[in-house]
Amino acid sequence: MTIKVFDLCGANDLRFSPNCWRTRMAVAHKELTANFVPWLFNEKEAISFSGGKTVPVLVDQDTTIRGSWEIANYLEENYPDAPSLFGGEAGRAVTGFINAWADSTLHPGLIRCILPDVFDRIDDTDKNYFRESREKRFGMTIEEMRESQPQALANFNRALTPLRTILKSEEWMAGDTPAYADYIIFGAFQWARVTSPLQIVNADDPIHPWRERMLDLFDELGRGFPAAS
Amino acid sequence: MTIKVFDLCGANDLRFSPNCWRTRMAVAHKELTANFVPWLFNEKEAISFSGGKTVPVLVDQDTTIRGSWEIANYLEENYPDAPSLFGGEAGRAVTGFINAWADSTLHPGLIRCILPDVFDRIDDTDKNYFRESREKRFGMTIEEMRESQPQALANFNRALTPLRTILKSEEWMAGDTPAYADYIIFGAFQWARVTSPLQIVNADDPIHPWRERMLDLFDELGRGFPAAS
Repeated sequence: MTIKVFDLCGANDLRFSPNCWRTRMAVAHKELTANFVPWLFNEKEAISFSGGKTVPVLVDQDTTIRGSWEIANYLEENYPDAPSLFGGEAGRAVTGFINAWADSTLHPGLIRCILPDVFDRIDDTDKNYFRESREKRFGMTIEEMRESQPQALANFNRALTPLRTILKSEEWMAGDTPAYADYIIFGAFQWARVTSPLQIVNADDPIHPWRERMLDLFDELGRGFPAAS
Repeated sequence: MTIKVFDLCGANDLRFSPNCWRTRMAVAHKELTANFVPWLFNEKEAISFSGGKTVPVLVDQDTTIRGSWEIANYLEENYPDAPSLFGGEAGRAVTGFINAWADSTLHPGLIRCILPDVFDRIDDTDKNYFRESREKRFGMTIEEMRESQPQALANFNRALTPLRTILKSEEWMAGDTPAYADYIIFGAFQWARVTSPLQIVNADDPIHPWRERMLDLFDELGRGFPAAS
């Protein structure tokens, strides 16, 4: 039975969730195939069996796993003969720090840049929910966030310092070969790439060539999803 | 011939450098002994043979290595039979991200809290250099920094979010056993502990029990250096 992943979806079948992108890359890394089922914010009922209200949700035979980090750990434990996502126990734990940093620093910084562009590209049936929940979370309207995009982008750029440092000397976040640490960070940049025309990373940034290499992985899995214009 | 490490030193032989603490813990992890030679900011000439002006500098037989990250990599490569500092190639690279995060986020946030206390505890012959260089770097006097300690501490606390997240579920930064990822972070907390009476971490913080475990490692290597009062 094929693995099934409930995957956040916008208008025109746009797959934009950074956390779902982590899972998509992890599934490819483990040389598995999965059916990425489109899921809208307003379809909470369709995933209520998972015990939560957010995606990704992975279903593998009789097992249901919710959350990108939990899914990565599940895949690593249950598909040990496929290439490792972490490169061992220390790699797993330390990758967990990158996961926590992405959740606490990278994503909150980036969503302040791209949220109005995400809003433009979600399904019409999700717009009321999205506007209400996000305006409450950020304490400003989507229109106000659009006006503050340049400032948000400057703040976000400062948060990228440790990424830049490491990508000056390493080919991949995980060293010689890409692994889950790379997919965590790539999820964020792919989220921006498919939803926003903003230039998040300049061509002379050490992050830029790494992102190009990431887009090439797994037969251009990431590049196959067009950039927003 | 015993390994020699030039180790930043304050008044009363206080060993307070966060980066030198990384090296001290790494040397112990590799089951090596080293002579940690006290070094003052004004003794640039004593380490000019290293090609730089900062410590740690490690001398092992004919080899000189400067910088805590370079030293960790040297020890890992040259003492492969001792316990690993990284747990493999992915662990090494991903630990490098934590290193870059500590340098770009943890240390700059923490020094704004403890700098006036560090100033009180450095050797008298270093005070002019320290005041001049640090006041220039931060654009305020040491006395102004002392007044802004509460605000600096609040800012620093926000930066600790990814650490707290990971230490809620992991015993060590590196998973089942402590490794260099732990020593990077410990270096910062030990810097604060031996120089500043400020309570940097509350008893109910998930970082607190981890720091206690860190202080116990290697026959209480860290605890053997008394906390500032």
